[in-house]
Amino acid sequence: MKDSSLVAGVEISTEKEDLICYSYDASGAAAMLPFAVAWPRNTDQVINIVKFADANNHSIIARGAGTGMAGASVPASNGIVISFEKMRKMLDVDTKNMTVTVEPGIINGKLQKELEYLGYFYPPDPASLNNCTIGGNVATNAGGPRALKYGVTRDYVMGMEAVMSDGSLIAAGGKTHKRVVGYDLRNLLIGSEGTLALATKIRLRMLPLPEDIMTLLVLFGKLESSGTAVSKIIAAKIIPRTMELLDKSAIEAIENYKPVGLPTDVDALLLIELDGYPTTIEKEAGRVVDICRALGGEVIVAEDSMAGERLWDARRSMSAALYHIKPAKINEDIVVPIDKVSLMLSELRRMSESSGIKIVSFGHAGDGNLHVNIMVDKNNKEEYAKGVELVPKIFEVTLRLGGSLSGEHGIGLTKASYFSMEVKRRELELMKGIKGVFDPKGLMNPGKIFG
Amino acid sequence: MKDSSLVAGVEISTEKEDLICYSYDASGAAAMLPFAVAWPRNTDQVINIVKFADANNHSIIARGAGTGMAGASVPASNGIVISFEKMRKMLDVDTKNMTVTVEPGIINGKLQKELEYLGYFYPPDPASLNNCTIGGNVATNAGGPRALKYGVTRDYVMGMEAVMSDGSLIAAGGKTHKRVVGYDLRNLLIGSEGTLALATKIRLRMLPLPEDIMTLLVLFGKLESSGTAVSKIIAAKIIPRTMELLDKSAIEAIENYKPVGLPTDVDALLLIELDGYPTTIEKEAGRVVDICRALGGEVIVAEDSMAGERLWDARRSMSAALYHIKPAKINEDIVVPIDKVSLMLSELRRMSESSGIKIVSFGHAGDGNLHVNIMVDKNNKEEYAKGVELVPKIFEVTLRLGGSLSGEHGIGLTKASYFSMEVKRRELELMKGIKGVFDPKGLMNPGKIFG
Repeated sequence: MKDSSLVAGVEISTEKEDLICYSYDASGAAAMLPFAVAWPRNTDQVINIVKFADANNHSIIARGAGTGMAGASVPASNGIVISFEKMRKMLDVDTKNMTVTVEPGIINGKLQKELEYLGYFYPPDPASLNNCTIGGNVATNAGGPRALKYGVTRDYVMGMEAVMSDGSLIAAGGKTHKRVVGYDLRNLLIGSEGTLALATKIRLRMLPLPEDIMTLLVLFGKLESSGTAVSKIIAAKIIPRTMELLDKSAIEAIENYKPVGLPTDVDALLLIELDGYPTTIEKEAGRVVDICRALGGEVIVAEDSMAGERLWDARRSMSAALYHIKPAKINEDIVVPIDKVSLMLSELRRMSESSGIKIVSFGHAGDGNLHVNIMVDKNNKEEYAKGVELVPKIFEVTLRLGGSLSGEHGIGLTKASYFSMEVKRRELELMKGIKGVFDPKGLMNPGKIFG
Repeated sequence: MKDSSLVAGVEISTEKEDLICYSYDASGAAAMLPFAVAWPRNTDQVINIVKFADANNHSIIARGAGTGMAGASVPASNGIVISFEKMRKMLDVDTKNMTVTVEPGIINGKLQKELEYLGYFYPPDPASLNNCTIGGNVATNAGGPRALKYGVTRDYVMGMEAVMSDGSLIAAGGKTHKRVVGYDLRNLLIGSEGTLALATKIRLRMLPLPEDIMTLLVLFGKLESSGTAVSKIIAAKIIPRTMELLDKSAIEAIENYKPVGLPTDVDALLLIELDGYPTTIEKEAGRVVDICRALGGEVIVAEDSMAGERLWDARRSMSAALYHIKPAKINEDIVVPIDKVSLMLSELRRMSESSGIKIVSFGHAGDGNLHVNIMVDKNNKEEYAKGVELVPKIFEVTLRLGGSLSGEHGIGLTKASYFSMEVKRRELELMKGIKGVFDPKGLMNPGKIFG
């Protein structure tokens, strides 16, 4: 039962079944039950909920679709979950300025499709795009395969309206790409995982849809060769829109879960997409093929867009396929400089062999962002403990190679205890200072990022 | 005479001639003499200067090449000017990761040329590129004509090492494009005009050099048609790398100062550049020509890259040409949504006619960023007062059209009194709070942005 007695006019529930449903996300992070769940329908309702929370010292946990991989939307306090699923409108498509304004609850994939009908393109494409929301994408600065050529969510947000922890409304950014008027509040909010403010309207930049796309599947007998190929393609000054890597175990997991006919007798594969005008694609494809063949890769060109889409469906089911094998697997999304991908893959293999724990690696090799899955069973305590021990070791190697703990998932709850491995004391002081400026009472998503 | 007695090992001067030379920039803003000028050669020396300033309560004014148009590097307090002109090394070109690491004092145009030899491309190209420094570009989030397609400085800075006002060193950003690890300190520093920290090392993203460039000159009998052409080209899903606008007075000013044979009997011209593979350029050029001709534009294709470069030289001398006419002209760099360029140009013409003050407009029409020059003589007090009165009126119209006070110059000293026209109370509180976190003693470039 959902009633409006707590905050006038707002759909809000304190029923246990609602509290349970909204106490977890895709990370599987250990949760607390919230005090209530609210479903605002507009900015005014968000303000009223926040004012109620502020007056009663409830914390505020923003939630998109709960597809986050780091537990940022999992309550770590007895607060109010604000679900944006009923604020999902596309408010304005402005083709003259190539922008689109949306409410935070709109689904990424839905927005993509709507824009495609008009001949436009919103590049950020997390694997969860058919479920995840733009608001959640902004909160985690979501990326995806196409980030290699087109960048991440940050590169497409022009401006936002956001509600502060005291219920006041701010504008961050504006209607123009160029703008140098004081400090960049917009980029501060992007990636802040609900700890600074709640975006209620988001203006995004869009691009013209590329004329054509070519999908290449490249099979490698040696995992490291796939990493080398990525590095050589970049060094050859070609920027495909995606260069996705799947290692042997990842290929096997897909074929067991949602078979698309990938060969399981190879050590790794790259899924490469080139886009643009057909003539330029052909030219670039020729060079990509040469580089891959010289490294022993076997190149298969997807016959048509349907065949390409089938491969992407399979790629996007990767995470589900792995959960199917080990429901409690540990999933990290490290990122290293592009030329260190091959070395990182070797190090992961070495760590897997020496620990006896299976590690499945896949992800956005083209921008150095690898999804590293430590395949452990929570019921097997010894195995699980070994898996947990591997996490800081993987992070150590990542940082030593000049990388970062998270390429697109964020820190949230699950990586908060490792945060200081990367962010040093002085930077942490600055971040905490900023947090204090935005949210002096500490009501916004406590327990996240900083632990 | 420059001695090192104030800060051990650091070249520093308190001689009057040095103080005078470092007390102004291209804005011509009224200045105070600084207490001293320092020329550090490395990060350690910057730290030592800052620690000396902190211990003695001197403010710190960072300075690149003094080409800023808003007075951000002009001392507004009796502090120490830190000139970065002796920290100008290119430290590392990493083609495998498409990044280049530089010291802040490197000249933008020098970096561009060095990268071009290697087949790479650093897009941000302020008109002052042959003089301005990358450090200054970062401080003001500099743009330039190519921002239309390629974005601004912010879009190319991956990471920074920076010195805080207490002499501590921080890292902002990293070595990877994807990175979601706490708040975005990097973007906070970019565009902060020396009020938060001093960048001492900057890692930039670079792109492969486009294979070819085509330059089109389009002449219009009506100013507003040029704005409409820009809007229609964007709506046709073509993104040229530049669409520069010169109105009639701007063309005349160039032809009087540095003649390149532009026709002075037209009302406006657009300088359009398309880049990429030759076949795609041809295709896009055909559509651009059709759009411009339908609006009455006469299209001239630059014969070769030399001819194109001559046009750009002329365009870049625009500011000098106008100073040549009115040395005390008032120069603003407003930005409006792309589809409002034509309307803004009409409004500017109307304001010019009703005030009797000549306004010369040119700039980056393709991204809505117009350089508006109010042509007044400081010695003619009545005229100058009328010109000053026009400034807030122009800003009012700009904001009403959804625009912003500054597209690339920043707020600095000259626009500080207008800042609150755009940035409202709550956002201002947040910015001042952030300033307090970074610089509790208020030593970093006081008097700038917030007044």
